[in-house]
Amino acid sequence: MNQKLGRASIRPERPVFILAGASIVGTKEGQGPLGLLFDKVGDDDMFGCRTWEEAESTLQKEAVGMALEKAGLSPEDISFVFAGDLLGQSMATSFGLSSYQIPLLGMYGACSTCGESLSVGAMAVAGGFADKVVCVTSSHFASAEKEFRFPLEYGNQRPLSASWTVTGSGAFVLGGEGNEKKARARITGVTVGRIVDYGLKDSMNMGACMAPAAASTLEQHFGDFGCGPEEYDRIITGDLGKVGQRVLLDLLSRKGYDLSGQHMDCGIEIFDGETQDTHAGGSGCGCSAVTLAAYILRQLQEKNWKKVLFMPTGALLSKTSFNEGMSVPGIAHAVVLESV
Amino acid sequence: MNQKLGRASIRPERPVFILAGASIVGTKEGQGPLGLLFDKVGDDDMFGCRTWEEAESTLQKEAVGMALEKAGLSPEDISFVFAGDLLGQSMATSFGLSSYQIPLLGMYGACSTCGESLSVGAMAVAGGFADKVVCVTSSHFASAEKEFRFPLEYGNQRPLSASWTVTGSGAFVLGGEGNEKKARARITGVTVGRIVDYGLKDSMNMGACMAPAAASTLEQHFGDFGCGPEEYDRIITGDLGKVGQRVLLDLLSRKGYDLSGQHMDCGIEIFDGETQDTHAGGSGCGCSAVTLAAYILRQLQEKNWKKVLFMPTGALLSKTSFNEGMSVPGIAHAVVLESV
Repeated sequence: MNQKLGRASIRPERPVFILAGASIVGTKEGQGPLGLLFDKVGDDDMFGCRTWEEAESTLQKEAVGMALEKAGLSPEDISFVFAGDLLGQSMATSFGLSSYQIPLLGMYGACSTCGESLSVGAMAVAGGFADKVVCVTSSHFASAEKEFRFPLEYGNQRPLSASWTVTGSGAFVLGGEGNEKKARARITGVTVGRIVDYGLKDSMNMGACMAPAAASTLEQHFGDFGCGPEEYDRIITGDLGKVGQRVLLDLLSRKGYDLSGQHMDCGIEIFDGETQDTHAGGSGCGCSAVTLAAYILRQLQEKNWKKVLFMPTGALLSKTSFNEGMSVPGIAHAVVLESV
Repeated sequence: MNQKLGRASIRPERPVFILAGASIVGTKEGQGPLGLLFDKVGDDDMFGCRTWEEAESTLQKEAVGMALEKAGLSPEDISFVFAGDLLGQSMATSFGLSSYQIPLLGMYGACSTCGESLSVGAMAVAGGFADKVVCVTSSHFASAEKEFRFPLEYGNQRPLSASWTVTGSGAFVLGGEGNEKKARARITGVTVGRIVDYGLKDSMNMGACMAPAAASTLEQHFGDFGCGPEEYDRIITGDLGKVGQRVLLDLLSRKGYDLSGQHMDCGIEIFDGETQDTHAGGSGCGCSAVTLAAYILRQLQEKNWKKVLFMPTGALLSKTSFNEGMSVPGIAHAVVLESV
């Protein structure tokens, strides 16, 4: 059973379905264009907790709970959970998922982690290593600003290239053969990304830092699968925002690919840039995850879209590397999703 | 092809071999009991770099380079690299592995990451998703103290329960069918751990924080595989140290398992506690990885041991969670290694 394809891709021979997706977001996300689609919107961004980090943990816990409920499953039915977040040592995951007692495999791919967890989760199911798995990622505006940039109390100004970290978590239940009737979408391919470093150092312009990685993974994907942009109804990046989108379209047009008809970015969709003061767009591990759970899966299920390429993008930034004058490399993992 | 076993384990149907392992360590590790076995020992702990974090990145880069060389492979032969470290946002991985341009899947399981990366790497190979993969983890004493505890310049005293983070990186090349002749050991099983939180809050006693997770994974493993400690020549934890070892043996004896004849801990092996002032023992992502590469694989290859259970243990600690008064949960992933 050769499920490897080309240099960096896999094509699962056995079916992998997304059986359920659930989303929880903060108030600002609830007020955005996708607001009515999310399963739960917080009254405030503390979610009843003492700290922002605990609040983010609660987001993961709630998202997993809702996804299990939608799939009609209990934690004991899940073989493994693939999970991650942006905080140092994936703190939101460690404290958010403990109570489920599901065997845990922690992932880190910055804001690409939703794509990474779906990729590895799909391998676990298609390889026969698990009946069902859960994939979950989260981010929180306040915990992320504290982790990567300035204390919120400092009230720093944000350039127009900056993005706004989404407060939210998206969780997905994956299952294999025998789950056709419950399936909301099918994972039919994966392209794993490389680290791409153009030497950019601006943590207030993550879109530009990540766009080269998105371009690299897309080019690899088209090569490995022998297809082009026209294969997809949408090619959906995670959180490039408006600046990153322009860079991506430019980079790919130089390679001969015109993405302008297909490209969509979760970071651009999730906020109304005109009225919500979010500048380049939304970002964070939660951005692509909640957009997939609330919006993309729905489009696939309603067959408005037949086939999309879902490609969360990550900026491999840390406050230590930033303070030491290092660049911000990017990475992006692509997952092919088809309607069932 | 059902490769799932029990609640939390897998048993690969197709063979997964460790084709090569390589280790690089700092000066203190080079002076320890295993010193002569490591592939490379640094003249100092900066490894020619400006910062500790860059030094740790260099460790990963060197370890992967040596492992590839030993296996007679180039980066292009590797489908995926599964990698991680202890630093915020896995900084050592992001900057250490960039130049290889191998598709990267980042892992985070604190000091259990070596076990996690081998577990997921084994799934990728046994599932037919990859011909060959690399698994690599690292830690560095100085970057870890800075990340988790006090600035080294502060010169704080360390209690006897504290461990000493190993400066080192271990890398492994895994491959499947057709590689029997090159194989140094075979991976024949995996048990994925859960988060176990006994509420301990002492970042200077990581052994006690992690021991309950080690006990949980072991009990699960014995149940899933229908075996007991006598199945193994050695049951090898990653970095419990002397305090954690005592806790583990106590917890398991209450469950009816006597591990005293089989248990070995990489953290206890790597330093001479009497003369090296390392207190409870060595720790860190690098500790179990370099001990596996330099010592355990050798014992398996020379058939001094036929079958061992390699179980790196992780303390899910972050400086933010610690400062917010949270506990230090543990996790442990177990990998069955057999001589070929």
